[in-house]
Order: sequence, then structure tokens, then C-alpha cells
Amino acid sequence: MSRLDDVLELLAARREASLEELVEFAALPSVSAQSAHAPDMARAAEWLAVRLRRCGPLTVELWPTAGHSAVYAEWLGAPGAPTLLIYGHYDVQPPEPLEKWHSPPFSPSVRGGRVFGRGVSDDKGPLLIAVQTADAYFAATGALPLNLKFLLEGEEEVGSPNLETLVKAQAKRLEADFVLSADGGMWSAEIPSLTVSARGLAALEFSVRGPAKDLHSGRHGGSVKNPLHALAALIASLHTPDGRVAVEGFYDGVLERNLLEREAIRQLPFSEADYLAQTGAPEVFGEVGFSTLERQWDRPTVEVNGLTGGYSGEGSKTVLPSEAQAKLTCRLVKGQDPERIVVLLEDHLRRHLPPGVTLELRPSGHGCAAYRLSEDHVGKAVALEVLREVYGQVPLEVGMGGSIPVLDIFGRILGLETVFFSFAVGDEDIHAPNEFFRVGRILEGQRAWALYWTRLAERGLTEHGLAGRGLAHE
Amino acid sequence: MSRLDDVLELLAARREASLEELVEFAALPSVSAQSAHAPDMARAAEWLAVRLRRCGPLTVELWPTAGHSAVYAEWLGAPGAPTLLIYGHYDVQPPEPLEKWHSPPFSPSVRGGRVFGRGVSDDKGPLLIAVQTADAYFAATGALPLNLKFLLEGEEEVGSPNLETLVKAQAKRLEADFVLSADGGMWSAEIPSLTVSARGLAALEFSVRGPAKDLHSGRHGGSVKNPLHALAALIASLHTPDGRVAVEGFYDGVLERNLLEREAIRQLPFSEADYLAQTGAPEVFGEVGFSTLERQWDRPTVEVNGLTGGYSGEGSKTVLPSEAQAKLTCRLVKGQDPERIVVLLEDHLRRHLPPGVTLELRPSGHGCAAYRLSEDHVGKAVALEVLREVYGQVPLEVGMGGSIPVLDIFGRILGLETVFFSFAVGDEDIHAPNEFFRVGRILEGQRAWALYWTRLAERGLTEHGLAGRGLAHE
Repeated sequence: MSRLDDVLELLAARREASLEELVEFAALPSVSAQSAHAPDMARAAEWLAVRLRRCGPLTVELWPTAGHSAVYAEWLGAPGAPTLLIYGHYDVQPPEPLEKWHSPPFSPSVRGGRVFGRGVSDDKGPLLIAVQTADAYFAATGALPLNLKFLLEGEEEVGSPNLETLVKAQAKRLEADFVLSADGGMWSAEIPSLTVSARGLAALEFSVRGPAKDLHSGRHGGSVKNPLHALAALIASLHTPDGRVAVEGFYDGVLERNLLEREAIRQLPFSEADYLAQTGAPEVFGEVGFSTLERQWDRPTVEVNGLTGGYSGEGSKTVLPSEAQAKLTCRLVKGQDPERIVVLLEDHLRRHLPPGVTLELRPSGHGCAAYRLSEDHVGKAVALEVLREVYGQVPLEVGMGGSIPVLDIFGRILGLETVFFSFAVGDEDIHAPNEFFRVGRILEGQRAWALYWTRLAERGLTEHGLAGRGLAHE
Repeated sequence: MSRLDDVLELLAARREASLEELVEFAALPSVSAQSAHAPDMARAAEWLAVRLRRCGPLTVELWPTAGHSAVYAEWLGAPGAPTLLIYGHYDVQPPEPLEKWHSPPFSPSVRGGRVFGRGVSDDKGPLLIAVQTADAYFAATGALPLNLKFLLEGEEEVGSPNLETLVKAQAKRLEADFVLSADGGMWSAEIPSLTVSARGLAALEFSVRGPAKDLHSGRHGGSVKNPLHALAALIASLHTPDGRVAVEGFYDGVLERNLLEREAIRQLPFSEADYLAQTGAPEVFGEVGFSTLERQWDRPTVEVNGLTGGYSGEGSKTVLPSEAQAKLTCRLVKGQDPERIVVLLEDHLRRHLPPGVTLELRPSGHGCAAYRLSEDHVGKAVALEVLREVYGQVPLEVGMGGSIPVLDIFGRILGLETVFFSFAVGDEDIHAPNEFFRVGRILEGQRAWALYWTRLAERGLTEHGLAGRGLAHE
């Protein structure tokens, strides 16, 4: 039996233990957006550090930042072999609205081959797969076939505001051939896929203010501007009725795909009926002239993520509120600069502000450009090969509607491209109530990671292309 | 000394006790809109019944309804004298947003000649003034100069949904010459005023639904309609940029004032600068072609009282929410029917619903027509005379932007007109944080109520006009 077979056998034997570990990890409410959870964030980082140390030969460090710490681990015992930087995040989205969960978000529950809990799919399950694979590799063979560096951050869900500073400061330690990301996800549970692009992100909050205090809407209604009316008018002004963004200059520089590429997307096995059944939306809607997948992968958006103002409790309250607020995010594509997009949005909101109210703009400061993996990247070739081996099917190359700000940081600061290698699936209700992860994908993912390291190490020794990519490894 | 002087002297002696009583009454969180406060509503009704019984000769009853009970009391010991139906309400608005109160809403606090607490101005202070005046009148003279019936309801702040049924059932008991309302308010603390009109009310809530569950706005953004965008477009469609309501047919039948009446409003001592200073609004805004007072008293409105949808917590959450909600109320003027207005609004929302979402309409069912007191009503003449006597100034005749649904009920079912006689002032932040009532107006109000009963009884015996109004009294 080969060394790889030993690893795979051990992983299969540890099947139950791997799931139990995920349940334990996901029970930690590591919500990076909510300051009340700061102690839980520290506990989750510590849990992860302890888990990494249990792998044996890894050097493990907690890297503090101005926000939540990152967990770093490395093993450099394969001189001459490729060096991978493995990325993931241990923070999770807020669990609200709590009343919509069928089981508590932080008491992970296994039902029907799925484990339900906040963060199990994004990104604790996929992250743990990589750690558990390393553990099994060490346990079965005493070494890894290549050099590994783990960088597991705690601020992905709030836009990684301190990662750039950290990566700059630790650039030397983080040198690698490329990044293999445990974050991301496949677009279907039935067909393996490799994500080769991701949209960028820009974010902005704003408040519309009218009277200095809440007023009685009977007494004052009609004589001062209601901030809720102004907010609605502003938001309505952001789009045309046919689904295009109405912000001047928003589409400037956007790279449109050629007809061949658009046709390739159309050929993907995507069913609009299934999509509607999955989301429960009454119909698809989006920018005129594009298909649903193009709208998700290749077209930029402005989305309102939250609106508040006035009374929302039980019954009625005849109030003309003093202010109203909105949270916006944009998804960007190649050719759009996040900072410029925020400026365009701010200009638009100022220009469209109705009379009688004032506007306060709060740009979030954390944006990222869109990403696209090089067509001929060796890490992509290995990923496609391994996925075919594990799933027995030719994997699809797909885009990703979401954003991973770190791709931008790794590219700009470390000169590294990123290959996605997550075993989450796009229907797992991440960022929503009842997030889940498919239990069967834990072992599938572990097998794939073990294969990936093995195959890349083999190629790295025999093929010419790899060492020339990225920065030289040690 | 006359009997009236004895009453006034006793009221002055009870000054402190009257304030203490209001503090005790306002400490009961009788929030009719929130079902958690149902026990407090019952306690407040009981408190009021006990207080009325302490007046001595009053017959006091709790009148249950499908919702909160009304408190009824009567004294009919002045045969041949006029009979007044005194109206007030012991329920209060929800106190939210709690964080904006400088002292707890239900621990009334006296500071700088004002008592702060939810409901002190609307309507517990003004209501208690009438009860305390009756008490002093009985104590000082052993009788009242006319017949009194108190009807103090517990559902005014939720639109008096059960009052019509109750008034129909008790029509015989409620027979009177006219209604004297302890609800309402004067428009300035400096100049006495009598409110001679009030706007009507219509209410509607609606939800816009998109996907069946919250979606990740990165993954799905741009490919299904965001309910928040649809909600904003719907609300923006309700008004034209120049402040008119854009709902088809909304202004049909609206009685416009003639030029003379409009000029009379323009002559009122109203300062736009003071109004802006008082409300803190950056500028006035409303229907083009009308002054601020006309906009408040004579023009109908559609106001959004609350908007919700998506994430509104700390930080960002990149969610495309499954639904969004809005609460609307309209203020109506003479010539508009509340039920028809709701139908017009529903039609408008259905017609303007953007594609990709569904609409759920929830009309509240409680509306009321606008009100206007007859020019030559004897109750109005007495009110003007008494206010001049108490304040030493000629009172103004003003309109009221708010709505008191009971006016409609008393008119339709009992055939009674209503005279407003509240000593609340329009700047007392009712329906908002830090609601207050001016302590000095407790005694002023009590003096005015005592005078009113005395003067009306005198007129009622010597003048012809009164007994012919309304239904015959017993």
C-alpha cells in the first residue's frame, strides 16, 4: 500500500471523529461583526491553535491584529517541494434572524446527513477538512509531501479589514508558490466544480435625517419631509426598472465577456426552475440582456442589505421618524475599482437627495477588486485532476458571485494567485438561517486535499512550470 | 364666596396632590398596542375606576370590549341641566425607542416645571384634570352644576377598534348634549386655542416578498429581485417630487378652503423659524402651493411610519432578505372616505409592484373620517369664553393635524358633536421619546373645566339653543 493509501485509510477511520470535531468547533459563536462576541472569537482562535498543535510537527502561532487574531501554522520539512499557503477563516456571520432557525445556530445538530449550524459551511467545515487532512498525513506517514503554511483569519465576514496590514508585516513568512483556499464553494452537490473567478466588493452605509426627534405623524405629517420617504426615493433611484444600476459611471471599464465565453456559460447544466425552487423566489430578475449565471458571476450589482427607520414593532405607531438608515453593498467585476465605485455611489446619493433632509454617508472602507485565476495555472490543473479522481466526473469551471477580499491582498502583496478548494456547496444557506454542511463531503474533501498535496508534490518535482510561479519558496 | 370660588380654592390647595396622582397614573405602562402590556392595561383601568369612585357620588363601571375595557362613570343629579359626555383615553403609545429617553418612560420624573413620562400629555394628564375637577366640585359643593358622563377608553392609540361596537351597545346610556373631549391639545403654550377640526385616518401595512429565505447577496445578488429594492420603489411611487400624493383619485372630493379662510390661517401667529427650531427639521417640506399650517390641518397625507427589512445590527451582513415591510398611515380631510382611500392605496401598490416579488396587503381596518365643529355650537362659545377668562387672552381657533377616531363614532352613532378641551400642548413630544406635560397646566386646566361646567350650566338654563342640539338628555 502506498503512503497515500495509508492516509486515506486513516481519514476513513476517523470519519466520526472528524464530524464531532466540527460540531465542537461550530458551537463557538465566533461572530466577528458583533463586539459582544469578542471573547468567543478569542476562544475560537485558541481552539484552532490547539487543534493545529495536535497535528504534531506544525509550528503554530497566534498573530494579533487591530481586530481579531489570525491563526498561523507552518511545516517546512519538504525542501525542494512546492510550498502552499492554505487560507481559511474561523469567524462566522451573525446568526440573526434567530427565530427562523430550526435548531439553535450555535448548537450544531446533525439531521439527514447534514450538520446544521452557523459557520459549518462558511467556513469552519471546509477549513477543518484541511487541518484534519494534515493531521492524518502526519499520523500515517510522519511527513507531508510538500511545505504547508496555514493562514486562518478571524475577520473574513467583516471584510478582512486588518488582513492587508498583517500580510504586509508577515510577507516573508507567507512566501509560497500559490494560495490554496479552503474558503469558497462548489455550485452544486451533484457535479464537482472549480471556481475560477469571484466578484469584488464595495460597501456603504448612509443615514437620512429630518427632524431632530421623532414627531407625531398626524400633527406634523405633510409639513416636514419624512426621512423614510427620502430614503425610499434614494434607494429607488439606484436602479432602472429593467434592472440596471442607474449610478452614473458605474459600468465604466467593466470587461464584457466575448460571445464564446457567454456561450460556454449558457452550456453549463443550470436549470432556472431548480434555481427558483431552491431559492423560493417567484421569478428571476436582473439586468436586462444577461442570463442568470452571467448576472451572478459577470455583472456588477448594487444591493441594499438592510433598511430601518420608524416603528417596526407590533401594532401601529403614528410616528414621523427623525432618521432612516440603509446598508448597501456592491458586487464588482474585473475593470471596476472599489474605491471609485464608492465615490460614484456617494455622488449619486448626494445628487438625488430630496429636499428637506440631510445625508450622512459612511463608507465602510473595506472593499476588494474582482478576481480571475490564470487560465494555465498549475494549481488549477491539479485541482481539476483531483476533483475528477474523487468524484468520477469532469469538473466544471464556474464563477462565483460572492467576494473573497483576501484574493486581492494575496495578489497585490504576495504576488500569489489563489486556487479555490472548498467542499462547501452553494445551496447550504450560508449567511442565512439554517446554514448546513453535507456530512459526506467531510471525507470527500479530506481525500481530495490529500490527493492534491500528493499530486502537486509529484508534479512539482517533475514539471518545470511551478517553481517559476509566485515568489520563490524557501 | 360663590360655590365656584370654593371649588377653585380647593383645586389650588390640592395642587401637589394632583401632580402626585398623575405621576402614579403615568407609571402604569398601559401600552395598548403591545400584547405583553395587557395586564398593565387592566391595572390602569382599575386604577382609574378606583380614582373615579373616590370622587364620591359617581356611578362607576368597567365596560369590557373585545380588546381593552373602557371605564365609564356618570352623575345625573342635575335634572334639567345639560348633560356632557366627557371623553378621554388611558392607553398610551409604545415608548420605543427606549434609548432616547432621558428618564425612564414609566417612571415619571418632574424637572423644570415639566413632568416627563409616556402618556402624561397624551392623554393621562388632561384626562385626570377632568376627574380631579369633578372630585373637587363634589367635595366643595356636594354636587355638580350639570350632568356628567365619563367615557375613558383604552384603545385610542390603536385606533379605537372596539369603541364603535361599545358605543352602539351603550347608546342609551351615552345620550348627552355634546361631547367634551379631554383628548386633543392646544397648539402653543403661550396663546390659548380651541381646536375646531381634526384630520381623519386610514392605515395599511404591507409586505414585499422575494425568495423564500434570506440569501447571500454576493451569490444571488443581481439574479433575483431584492425585496428592499421593490419596497423602496413602491414607497417612492406614493409621492411626486413636489410633495403631492401620487395615488390616483386620492384628492377626489377634497374640500378646499376658500380664499378668506386661507387668509385667516395665514394671519395666525405662526413662525416657520420657530417651527423648525422646535422640530429640528432642516426645512419645511410639503405639498406645493400650501402653507405649513394648511399642510398640517387641511391637506391629506400618506406617511410611512416604519420600514424594515434585512440586517440592521452592528457591522455589515451581506444578505438579500426574503421580505421587507412598511407601515403606512394617511391623514384625511373633509370629503375623503377612509375605506375608499385604503382601496385606492391598495390598487396603487398592486399596480406599481415591480416584477420579481409578491405583495401582501394588511389594511388595519380602523380608520376615521375627518371632523369639523359647527361654527355656531354653544359648546364652542363657552370654551372660547372660558379660555379667555383663564388665560386673559382671546383664544385662537385652530385645526388639528392628528386624528381622533371617536369624533366620527360619536357623530355617526350618538349624533353628538365634540368640543376639544384638552390642556396638552402640541410641542410636548407625544408619540416620541421624552413626552412631557407642563405642571402649571394641571391647575389651569382644572380651573377651566370648573368654569366650563359652571358657565354651561348657567347658559343651559337661560339660553334656548342648547337643549335642541344632539339627542335629548334625560
